[in-house]
Amino acid sequence: MSAYDQISAAIDKKQSNFIQRLREAVEIPSVSADAAFRKDVFTMISWTQKELERLGAVCEQIPNGIQKLSDGQEIPLPPVLFATLGTDKSKKTLLVYGHLDVQPAALSDGWDTDPFKLIEKDGKLYGRGSTDDKGPVMAWINAIEVMHELKIDIPVNIKFVLEGMEESGSEGLENILNAHKNSFLSDVDFTCISDNYWLGKKKPCITYGLRGICYYGVEIVVAKQDLHSGVFGGTVHDGVSDLCWLFSQLIDLHGNIKIDGLHELVAPVTPEEVELYKKIDFDVEDYKKDIAVDNLVTDDKVKVLMNRWRFPSLSLHGIEGAFHGPGAKTVIPSKITGKFSIRIVPNMEPEVVDKLVVDYLNKLWAQRNSPNKFKVHPYQGSRPWVADYNHPHFQAGAAAIKKVFGTEPDYTREGGSIPVTLTFQELTQKSVMLLPIGASDDMAHSQNEKINISNYIEGTKVLAAYLLELANVQ
Amino acid sequence: MSAYDQISAAIDKKQSNFIQRLREAVEIPSVSADAAFRKDVFTMISWTQKELERLGAVCEQIPNGIQKLSDGQEIPLPPVLFATLGTDKSKKTLLVYGHLDVQPAALSDGWDTDPFKLIEKDGKLYGRGSTDDKGPVMAWINAIEVMHELKIDIPVNIKFVLEGMEESGSEGLENILNAHKNSFLSDVDFTCISDNYWLGKKKPCITYGLRGICYYGVEIVVAKQDLHSGVFGGTVHDGVSDLCWLFSQLIDLHGNIKIDGLHELVAPVTPEEVELYKKIDFDVEDYKKDIAVDNLVTDDKVKVLMNRWRFPSLSLHGIEGAFHGPGAKTVIPSKITGKFSIRIVPNMEPEVVDKLVVDYLNKLWAQRNSPNKFKVHPYQGSRPWVADYNHPHFQAGAAAIKKVFGTEPDYTREGGSIPVTLTFQELTQKSVMLLPIGASDDMAHSQNEKINISNYIEGTKVLAAYLLELANVQ
Repeated sequence: MSAYDQISAAIDKKQSNFIQRLREAVEIPSVSADAAFRKDVFTMISWTQKELERLGAVCEQIPNGIQKLSDGQEIPLPPVLFATLGTDKSKKTLLVYGHLDVQPAALSDGWDTDPFKLIEKDGKLYGRGSTDDKGPVMAWINAIEVMHELKIDIPVNIKFVLEGMEESGSEGLENILNAHKNSFLSDVDFTCISDNYWLGKKKPCITYGLRGICYYGVEIVVAKQDLHSGVFGGTVHDGVSDLCWLFSQLIDLHGNIKIDGLHELVAPVTPEEVELYKKIDFDVEDYKKDIAVDNLVTDDKVKVLMNRWRFPSLSLHGIEGAFHGPGAKTVIPSKITGKFSIRIVPNMEPEVVDKLVVDYLNKLWAQRNSPNKFKVHPYQGSRPWVADYNHPHFQAGAAAIKKVFGTEPDYTREGGSIPVTLTFQELTQKSVMLLPIGASDDMAHSQNEKINISNYIEGTKVLAAYLLELANVQ
Repeated sequence: MSAYDQISAAIDKKQSNFIQRLREAVEIPSVSADAAFRKDVFTMISWTQKELERLGAVCEQIPNGIQKLSDGQEIPLPPVLFATLGTDKSKKTLLVYGHLDVQPAALSDGWDTDPFKLIEKDGKLYGRGSTDDKGPVMAWINAIEVMHELKIDIPVNIKFVLEGMEESGSEGLENILNAHKNSFLSDVDFTCISDNYWLGKKKPCITYGLRGICYYGVEIVVAKQDLHSGVFGGTVHDGVSDLCWLFSQLIDLHGNIKIDGLHELVAPVTPEEVELYKKIDFDVEDYKKDIAVDNLVTDDKVKVLMNRWRFPSLSLHGIEGAFHGPGAKTVIPSKITGKFSIRIVPNMEPEVVDKLVVDYLNKLWAQRNSPNKFKVHPYQGSRPWVADYNHPHFQAGAAAIKKVFGTEPDYTREGGSIPVTLTFQELTQKSVMLLPIGASDDMAHSQNEKINISNYIEGTKVLAAYLLELANVQ
């Protein structure tokens, strides 16, 4: 029986233990975007440290200073967890990145079950963080645990970098990694990140590109406090109207961004690239059905995929400060902040995008000639990333997938951002690969986030097989 | 010593008791717009019933059925409290209306103190409902209590109608009043409502007109659930963008409503009206300073007052369903409902306005040609109201004010709506008068709502003096 076959059998046998491990992780509501849950992010990091120490890892929590919230409040940033498993100088060193924080979630958002309980139903595990990114982090721990128990040698040293601010712009992480470039990161030979998803629900993939993101708050101030619309309506100028007008000028109906100079930054598409996209296994109708959308901005497969991965997109997220509950509150909000973001691609640099966006909004505001006060605030952005998928490191990933699923993976890009990917590539100057284990319908960031039990368990096998395959990468 | 002088001295003496009464009322968080506080609205009604029964009133809680919320949930509507104090057939009968529910409020909205504690500071009483409308309701109770204690005959029978849904469109009230037209309401000779504010901070007024209101929810559906903007951005059409575009088409920069046919409904302004407005004591600069607004849509006194009272205004209140917290959540909302309202004036009828609004939005939506789903939902509207301020009933109010303040009141209108005003006028076919006791800077519906102690106490005197003056109205 091959090492992989032993591992595979042992993983199947331990399925309920692995689900229990994920359950404990999901039940810690480590929401990084909400100050009220900050203590839970700390708890989640310490809990994970104990799991890694049980595997023999040497752990260190790197302090990350203070976060200054927009309201002036100061709260501690969660530390970054460094862990080292093996220091054999004859072996190469793999760096594994993951995050332990999650997006906000509440039953009242429309979840069918408590988002911070792991609910098993029809072969799926529902809960916030089940797939993004607690499931994959637990899968790494599962894989190593099984190899230890079977006394199968792991052919690489493994280092972990696990953070607690990924869903809030990875604040502080880049500084910490920069500071450890010549120490903790100096001997890293390849980096693997499992924090994205298959393109579909059946076929595994390896990912070689990510979009970056720039995020903006547009603040409009009408008065010093909210005003009764009966008493003041008709005399003060409506701030929501100003904001809506600005927001109506950002994209057209086809999703095209109207910000001057933005499209000129995008790297031109090559004919070879179009051919690559044509080969990808992707069903537009299925995609529409999954999210119950009647009409996309285009029905062309290559265009849909390129709009997701290859071109920038702008999304309007909402308004802070206005009435947002059910019912009919009759207030003119005094201060509102509209939020939007732009997913960016090569060769867009956040600083350049920020300048174009601020200039464009200032130009619009001058046109608007409103008596209200206006401010635009760029949040910390992250750059896009594209790698060479012909590198032997990627081939090790592909071989692992073939071992578990009997099929070659698709090579994909992602529309989301994992800001740290580019940081690892730049600091280590070595190959970084994204090896997803979740499925396309896992609904990360949304209501009813889940991971399929099969993805979680077969994903654990892929990560173990990948560790074995790394023996062959020189 | 005249009856009024005795009453005035006694009211001054009982100031701390009266503040304590208001404190108890404010500490019941009877927010009608939020299902979570519905039980507190019930508590507030029963608490007030006990206060009235202590004065010898005969009370009855009229059941008000079930409220169907937009999410399908069904909750009980609070009953309407009817109270009768005196049944002397030789006396006329006064109807007093007030409401016991309040607008939503939370410390996190920017209140300096807990909105559901009554905080005394610098001669002001801060707390949600202190001025809108618990303060005035308590002032009626105070006035009657003092007259009873002094054994001064109240020259009218008094009936109370106190409801718990005013801040949520007075749902159910009109039906209940209609059903009691020929019983409880049949012998009413005049109605007095204290649920609005002085025009300024020093000079009392009597109010003879109100705007009505039409309220709308504009729902846009993108997908069956919220979508990660990285994974789906660029392929689905942004619903917030659709909503913002619609909202940008509702008013121009001068506050003019762009809905086809709406202005044609407004009764033309007469030269006599302009003269009346010119005489009113109102300082535009002071008004701007109070709310810290640099520029209004106009600086002309008559125009400002007419924009508040005499012309319709449209306010955009916010979006339900989009991201509204602090931080940088990256979601494409699946279903959003934009909320706006129009304050209406004679001769605008809600049904006619609803049709114009729905037609206009449907026309815009057809222009927009968006792949998303769209629905517009008119909430229950209320009609505007204008009365004859030369009626003897209004002169009794003016005489009461002259007794307490030594000055004639200004005759004003209000920009807000008190839907029930018109209902009482129509059902009783008798004079209805608005007799405010709060000041213009009380910030009803806003953060740090307050009533000045002087307004609360002198207001109690005005209501008592008014009861005495009613002896002279035939």
